[in-house]
Amino acid sequence: MNLTIVKVGGKVVENLDSLNSLLSQFSKIAGHKMLVHGGGRSATELAERLGIESKMIDGRRITDEETLKVVTMVYGGLVNKNIVAGLQSLGLDAIGLTGADMNIMLSVKRPVKDDGIDYGFVGDVKSVNSSVLVKLMGNDFVPVLAPLTHDGKGHILNTNADTIAGEAAKALTFDYNVRLVYCFEKKGVLMDEADDNSVIKFLNRDLYEEYKTKGIITKGMIPKLENAFQAIAAGVKEVIITSAENLNDGEGTTIR
Amino acid sequence: MNLTIVKVGGKVVENLDSLNSLLSQFSKIAGHKMLVHGGGRSATELAERLGIESKMIDGRRITDEETLKVVTMVYGGLVNKNIVAGLQSLGLDAIGLTGADMNIMLSVKRPVKDDGIDYGFVGDVKSVNSSVLVKLMGNDFVPVLAPLTHDGKGHILNTNADTIAGEAAKALTFDYNVRLVYCFEKKGVLMDEADDNSVIKFLNRDLYEEYKTKGIITKGMIPKLENAFQAIAAGVKEVIITSAENLNDGEGTTIR
Repeated sequence: MNLTIVKVGGKVVENLDSLNSLLSQFSKIAGHKMLVHGGGRSATELAERLGIESKMIDGRRITDEETLKVVTMVYGGLVNKNIVAGLQSLGLDAIGLTGADMNIMLSVKRPVKDDGIDYGFVGDVKSVNSSVLVKLMGNDFVPVLAPLTHDGKGHILNTNADTIAGEAAKALTFDYNVRLVYCFEKKGVLMDEADDNSVIKFLNRDLYEEYKTKGIITKGMIPKLENAFQAIAAGVKEVIITSAENLNDGEGTTIR
Repeated sequence: MNLTIVKVGGKVVENLDSLNSLLSQFSKIAGHKMLVHGGGRSATELAERLGIESKMIDGRRITDEETLKVVTMVYGGLVNKNIVAGLQSLGLDAIGLTGADMNIMLSVKRPVKDDGIDYGFVGDVKSVNSSVLVKLMGNDFVPVLAPLTHDGKGHILNTNADTIAGEAAKALTFDYNVRLVYCFEKKGVLMDEADDNSVIKFLNRDLYEEYKTKGIITKGMIPKLENAFQAIAAGVKEVIITSAENLNDGEGTTIR
């Protein structure tokens, strides 16, 4: 049984036109499917309107109490529910979930490490309740996961959407052939950052190391690709990095 | 099989102490249970901070596009997810749902009627997907319903929480002996509004009409009680109007 997990970032889901186009593409994927979304831009925008400063370190949001409220509203409410309503209108029986709902994803508040950075109310995933996800999908529901988890002690925690997608994918390899698709703004991993059409079609660990040594694959892509290889090592069949527009046309970088 | 549906208003769920006390009370209810929450005060507060004016007519919020975003964030995100996380910490496997999730509650945008009032993005409930709720509760999940529905065409709509609770109760009478509990700020319907302890223990349609004629039951309580009698007429076993603190102690007004 095949399962496709699609992760989309804020840019795609926060614009109504690109969201509708994505949902339409997503609805055409055969087999079981699951959507994981971000929403960082809307969170930053709402925080700004409320006079709350957004502090980021390496793309990760420092989440104080006020910021936690903002992301709970934006990720769990605004973005998640608009996606669910949109998928319902396309005939998919979507269900929006944070990690707290049905205890889907339990996390632990990130401790302050040697670097001294206190991320605040940020959760590192401890366990995924894959059996509930399997049951839902077996009954033709389409889970839509918001990047929020819970600590089991009554607190919502902020968790990176790439991580949510990766953890869900790894946990579901026992039940499905999992394909994990990361949508981002480019068509795929590029040989030449200045040329949008220079997509690297295929990567494995050896090629990746080679391209890294040669300086072709640099900073921004490294954490994304490290995540991808971790997923492959954990049993995910393939990871695809592509743009939302190219979700179904075989474009993008395939990682195995 | 017994089912208790508890509706709590904004005042109770928006204060952490009263919320925790409510959730603890709620968790002790025997049999199947479901929670329906409001959140109007937080919505009004957030709207204010964002410079959006809250317009109410007879306690109903006029929901323009900006206000719809606010209620989707507050009801579907902030309030709903904090309740779910709280119940999870008490050992209840809660699942937060809007009407869009699993197509639980389909509504139609309220048309402008003879009174000329345009409520905007407000939904009147058309159908309740009771079979999904029955399945969830049969698997020991505890649904937590936010006062949001969807129109099946991709739009979230704002729906009054009392209505959500009433419609869910009526739809579930085929599967359960339904008890519907409306929590509000008083201990129950009062004989004397100045005396908080003058709770009317029991009301049926005849007594209600008598008290109304005598001027004992007045304006504010009439729509609540009309809703209650509609639920009874539709097969709900009893409606209880009480305060959140008195949820489990047999206080309050019982309507049959």
